[in-house]
Amino acid sequence: MKDIRVGMIGTRFMGRAHSNAYINVGYFFPTPLHPVLTAACGRDEINLNMFADRFGYQSTETSWERLVRRDDIDLVDICTSNATHLPIALEAAKNGKHIFCEKPLALNAHEARQMAEAAEEAGVTHMVAFNYRRVPAIVLAKQMIDQGSLGRIYHFNAVYYQDWLSDPKSPYVWRNDVTQAGSGAHGDLNAHTVDLARYLVGEFEAVSGIQQVFIKERPRQDGTMRRVTADDATGFLARFQAGAVGVFMATRLATGRRNLLRFEIFGSQGSLVFNLERMNELQFYSGDDPDQRQGFRTILVTDKPHPYISAWWPPGHIIGWEHAFIHETYDLLVAIESGAPAVPDFRDGLKCQQVLDAVQDSSLQGRWITLRGA
Amino acid sequence: MKDIRVGMIGTRFMGRAHSNAYINVGYFFPTPLHPVLTAACGRDEINLNMFADRFGYQSTETSWERLVRRDDIDLVDICTSNATHLPIALEAAKNGKHIFCEKPLALNAHEARQMAEAAEEAGVTHMVAFNYRRVPAIVLAKQMIDQGSLGRIYHFNAVYYQDWLSDPKSPYVWRNDVTQAGSGAHGDLNAHTVDLARYLVGEFEAVSGIQQVFIKERPRQDGTMRRVTADDATGFLARFQAGAVGVFMATRLATGRRNLLRFEIFGSQGSLVFNLERMNELQFYSGDDPDQRQGFRTILVTDKPHPYISAWWPPGHIIGWEHAFIHETYDLLVAIESGAPAVPDFRDGLKCQQVLDAVQDSSLQGRWITLRGA
Amino acid sequence: MKDIRVGMIGTRFMGRAHSNAYINVGYFFPTPLHPVLTAACGRDEINLNMFADRFGYQSTETSWERLVRRDDIDLVDICTSNATHLPIALEAAKNGKHIFCEKPLALNAHEARQMAEAAEEAGVTHMVAFNYRRVPAIVLAKQMIDQGSLGRIYHFNAVYYQDWLSDPKSPYVWRNDVTQAGSGAHGDLNAHTVDLARYLVGEFEAVSGIQQVFIKERPRQDGTMRRVTADDATGFLARFQAGAVGVFMATRLATGRRNLLRFEIFGSQGSLVFNLERMNELQFYSGDDPDQRQGFRTILVTDKPHPYISAWWPPGHIIGWEHAFIHETYDLLVAIESGAPAVPDFRDGLKCQQVLDAVQDSSLQGRWITLRGA
Amino acid sequence: MKDIRVGMIGTRFMGRAHSNAYINVGYFFPTPLHPVLTAACGRDEINLNMFADRFGYQSTETSWERLVRRDDIDLVDICTSNATHLPIALEAAKNGKHIFCEKPLALNAHEARQMAEAAEEAGVTHMVAFNYRRVPAIVLAKQMIDQGSLGRIYHFNAVYYQDWLSDPKSPYVWRNDVTQAGSGAHGDLNAHTVDLARYLVGEFEAVSGIQQVFIKERPRQDGTMRRVTADDATGFLARFQAGAVGVFMATRLATGRRNLLRFEIFGSQGSLVFNLERMNELQFYSGDDPDQRQGFRTILVTDKPHPYISAWWPPGHIIGWEHAFIHETYDLLVAIESGAPAVPDFRDGLKCQQVLDAVQDSSLQGRWITLRGA
Repeated sequence: MKDIRVGMIGTRFMGRAHSNAYINVGYFFPTPLHPVLTAACGRDEINLNMFADRFGYQSTETSWERLVRRDDIDLVDICTSNATHLPIALEAAKNGKHIFCEKPLALNAHEARQMAEAAEEAGVTHMVAFNYRRVPAIVLAKQMIDQGSLGRIYHFNAVYYQDWLSDPKSPYVWRNDVTQAGSGAHGDLNAHTVDLARYLVGEFEAVSGIQQVFIKERPRQDGTMRRVTADDATGFLARFQAGAVGVFMATRLATGRRNLLRFEIFGSQGSLVFNLERMNELQFYSGDDPDQRQGFRTILVTDKPHPYISAWWPPGHIIGWEHAFIHETYDLLVAIESGAPAVPDFRDGLKCQQVLDAVQDSSLQGRWITLRGA
Repeated sequence: MKDIRVGMIGTRFMGRAHSNAYINVGYFFPTPLHPVLTAACGRDEINLNMFADRFGYQSTETSWERLVRRDDIDLVDICTSNATHLPIALEAAKNGKHIFCEKPLALNAHEARQMAEAAEEAGVTHMVAFNYRRVPAIVLAKQMIDQGSLGRIYHFNAVYYQDWLSDPKSPYVWRNDVTQAGSGAHGDLNAHTVDLARYLVGEFEAVSGIQQVFIKERPRQDGTMRRVTADDATGFLARFQAGAVGVFMATRLATGRRNLLRFEIFGSQGSLVFNLERMNELQFYSGDDPDQRQGFRTILVTDKPHPYISAWWPPGHIIGWEHAFIHETYDLLVAIESGAPAVPDFRDGLKCQQVLDAVQDSSLQGRWITLRGA
Repeated sequence: MKDIRVGMIGTRFMGRAHSNAYINVGYFFPTPLHPVLTAACGRDEINLNMFADRFGYQSTETSWERLVRRDDIDLVDICTSNATHLPIALEAAKNGKHIFCEKPLALNAHEARQMAEAAEEAGVTHMVAFNYRRVPAIVLAKQMIDQGSLGRIYHFNAVYYQDWLSDPKSPYVWRNDVTQAGSGAHGDLNAHTVDLARYLVGEFEAVSGIQQVFIKERPRQDGTMRRVTADDATGFLARFQAGAVGVFMATRLATGRRNLLRFEIFGSQGSLVFNLERMNELQFYSGDDPDQRQGFRTILVTDKPHPYISAWWPPGHIIGWEHAFIHETYDLLVAIESGAPAVPDFRDGLKCQQVLDAVQDSSLQGRWITLRGA
Repeated sequence: MKDIRVGMIGTRFMGRAHSNAYINVGYFFPTPLHPVLTAACGRDEINLNMFADRFGYQSTETSWERLVRRDDIDLVDICTSNATHLPIALEAAKNGKHIFCEKPLALNAHEARQMAEAAEEAGVTHMVAFNYRRVPAIVLAKQMIDQGSLGRIYHFNAVYYQDWLSDPKSPYVWRNDVTQAGSGAHGDLNAHTVDLARYLVGEFEAVSGIQQVFIKERPRQDGTMRRVTADDATGFLARFQAGAVGVFMATRLATGRRNLLRFEIFGSQGSLVFNLERMNELQFYSGDDPDQRQGFRTILVTDKPHPYISAWWPPGHIIGWEHAFIHETYDLLVAIESGAPAVPDFRDGLKCQQVLDAVQDSSLQGRWITLRGA
């Protein structure tokens, strides 16, 4: 099997999740390429060395510019903060590297378009790490919709609830700074639900949004207060091109909800509900069930015929959150080897960003914004 | 105990639910007045007689004008379609009758204001039948919020899902006609969630809405098609005066959800979730719980110290949907006897209607609408 | 419509639940007989008068012997403590009264047999108030089983959890006294699950039980301690004649479970789960569902085609615990009027008692007890 | 860091789960030893080579006798069928290897005692792979009990439901053969619940059991039928030394339940419920909560202060079933390095086996069996 030499940029949460996926994918899936952890890159040397040691990276770099130019790197994996995605991706494309980039793809659609165009022109494989597209329950949802089991879709409603900023005294972090993060809950959380909406029910037509900073300033480590510029919460209404209507809400102040992404899809023939905190389950209602026996059924998505599951354990033995990364890494490797486009690619990342941007514009202008085609 | 002589207008779903409440309230609550089912009024004589027979009304009327003028009626109960609320209420007020009116109070705020002013001038007791304010779990939610257990409230998100119009072939009914119903899902379902939002987190400041008719025409009994003018679904964003932000969605096409009103309230200290299909339960999360032991707890609201419950059965013996009507009827009778204002009164009905109107205006204009004070 | 004149013996919890049913049944069901609350009987005169006033009983008696002999009583309703069921029922039968008796039918099978034989010889209608047979979800379960939707049944597992005796300091009551109550959790709670097991999967063949008094003495009102003789908890294993195997547990020390009766039925083709605290729901798993879409579905048993439901409200508007009493009262009145046997009758009460007795014997003897036919 | 050289015997489900754990433990936990996958052993050479290739074992053996005698093996991991545990473990002990053995430890207590004694005499580290002791929610349950949060424990009720044998036509496998498997559902599933009961509420005092073969014969691959000798289901009643009472049921015919281990623990002060299909959650009821606010709370056991969780992901990002193996492998390595006894060790395996044996004896004899001390 051929090696694929990975250059990882970013050593925190996502760096760990991606590294875990590279290590494990081959133990469970018939990967066409063998990922080699060739180099890790980070700015804090101490942390970088710990990270590289732990996951077995063969070398380190403290400059991403150097990493993306190295001859012995085939795939650049971008797990850094949002503001750095653009320059890294452009340089990686220029150097002919395949690119795997964390979401949201960029700070805005303008940046995302540059990234998509650069990657396309370079002819490299490019993928955005919308990992929830690889949750078996969500893939099953997609299959059901494609098979027509829901009929015509009326509604796609979604929330993404976290609560790590509920406490007004929780300290200021870079994610509170709009210049570094692009946005707050919106780009971080709505990016996921917008991508899932596109995956499951198609393109958006128009949106009307509201963005809110509830806690206007937060304490820095030295005790002084700093103004928060990134949204704590962003909600929006949406109309889809295919006619569905939806409401969305992302917030980091949903006290008690650690990481609850929930979508509810209602169609003329059936309905689906998904909840990330119970990500091995999919709720399905079928209008075809006999009159007296209709109800939402809880499908425990751990059976052999379920997507990705045959690689894992017997029925009823649930998988964890990070397994979705293993699945997407598998799909990425297949795409790279085959030369077929990865899904979702930077063009998807751009389309997602256009929706996010429209919500922000709408919020500023107090009116609906119609999406133009990407 | 003094009698209170009830004149019931309307013999369908709500007429039955209210009649049941008048009959039963005295068996379980220390009512200060004894409801006498003096007269029932309906247009279809056969149905009217069956209704009056079943519930033991002493007389019938086919003209509401006659009923509201009868000397032997103390309380007029309006359970008719929305378009008739205004004339009945005005005439009842003129005749010095107490008035109990189904929701939504009127077709629009203009009507609702006339009703509120007429009732206030007449000095009668007036109440809008927002029955969910009398669900024990919701009263408990209110108590918790008032006690500060949620801290500062960030979010009030609510949906009201029904599915009786999911099937494009389900027949045309008066509720599909905007001239008779005022609106569709919006006035019927959002009226409840708007009232609950006002009850629990206070007044609205601004809204942005979307209304949708998914099924443009429906079959009449003779097989011909008739155009649907009332909304199948209405969603909206809201900002509250106290700073909270919310998303709302009401729809009659939520396939598989028979009657799911759900609200989620997130505050700085705690959170609450309610689901009408499990109306004896309240989900409560407290940030005060110890670190390792935090989670949403399911309070089965059937214990003696819970609101209204001491009148009923031992713990764990759940009550039904119609019990909320018994509770509100009890409160209405207490208000009438004491002379204190009933809650929610027509002024509340008006305020609810103003929010509903603003959502409709917003939907037409494609922009946010700010509420002016009532 | 003919009247049926009711003589109610017992004025506490069950007296209230039955009275409520007599009052309401006619408003919702096409009863062939009109229940008249002719007389109420209790030992405590103050309480008796309050009870009779509240529910509108036309007269009172402090001696049940007098009540059961009154010419103006057609139906004797026994809602007293278990030890008095036998004498009342025998005297009622002797006087040709129809008899509706609370569960468990008697202190033991010996008594129950006398009651069944006396009622049969008298030719009166007799029914045991196993109200859970009239919960719509449970009737639906029965229909599914009868239609073969579960295939061959392997397991019937049931628990009945209450917690009002969890606290060692909770005061001594008559239910802790085996001479008055016959048994504790066993006769009170297992009586229900044993009856439901017989209703749903047929006769028992053999049992092995354990009975436990966890709190050996409890405080009386005067502060002195009194020895507890009735079981706090009784569990047992069972083998059914049709081959199923089950485990049962009834306890009043299930802290946090106010009134949780749960059964789980597993068959070769499908399965059912019921939970009394969510009594409007039935969980159903069908092995006939397609491979990828199998799961327990939550049927909200509030649709028109569901048992008893067409009498009530639209879909999704749940009914309460006491509605099962209204349903069983309706069925009782139909049986009385038609002369057909009521179900479950005293013979069922006897068969239930034989199982309960066998569990007690087994517990004492430390071995399995085989049931002999009734 | 020192290496620990692993010899893996068995290449199926458990072989895969253990291999995964050895590979991953070091990426997430501060292991004191570095596991080296030195040799894998299996009887089917083709399958063995695939397995060894996939997980990177450095060598293979088709004879376990050879493997356990190799000088370059420090730790023997026994993942074979139950009947082979004894000879392998004895030989491994004789050769001074540390031993990690799958559950149940042996076919019966007689064997288990030999294994425990051999391992103790050899002075090696020995551990039984009761992986559910390393589920964070279960460790949290243990901590709560140890802290007294449940008060005096009244009940430990447990089920282990699987359904892979529900279909009478599902093919005969070695697990249906009592001579190879020792028992069926009993040893496989009750082994887990008995171990958890011991872990959480202490030693058993007496049991009364029932074992059932529902499907008397099953088809072999050649279409002929073979008699089933291992139990499809085993239930039992239990009394614990500390006074609690419990019911247990293990079955492979619980149609619709793929892998549902559930325990319910009721104490005088609080209660706990765990369900393996939602293994990241623990239900906790505290009697200390204020009157109006009592209820079972769902603790999502993914917060930093929860057991083992700080090694993984942020709150709300759930872990999978196999993570418990990683946790137990970490604990095993710590035990080996420190020389402290591993928990649970073969002595625990023996005690579990004694309970299992007593249930089997009880089932045969139709009476209660009292446990003697181990």
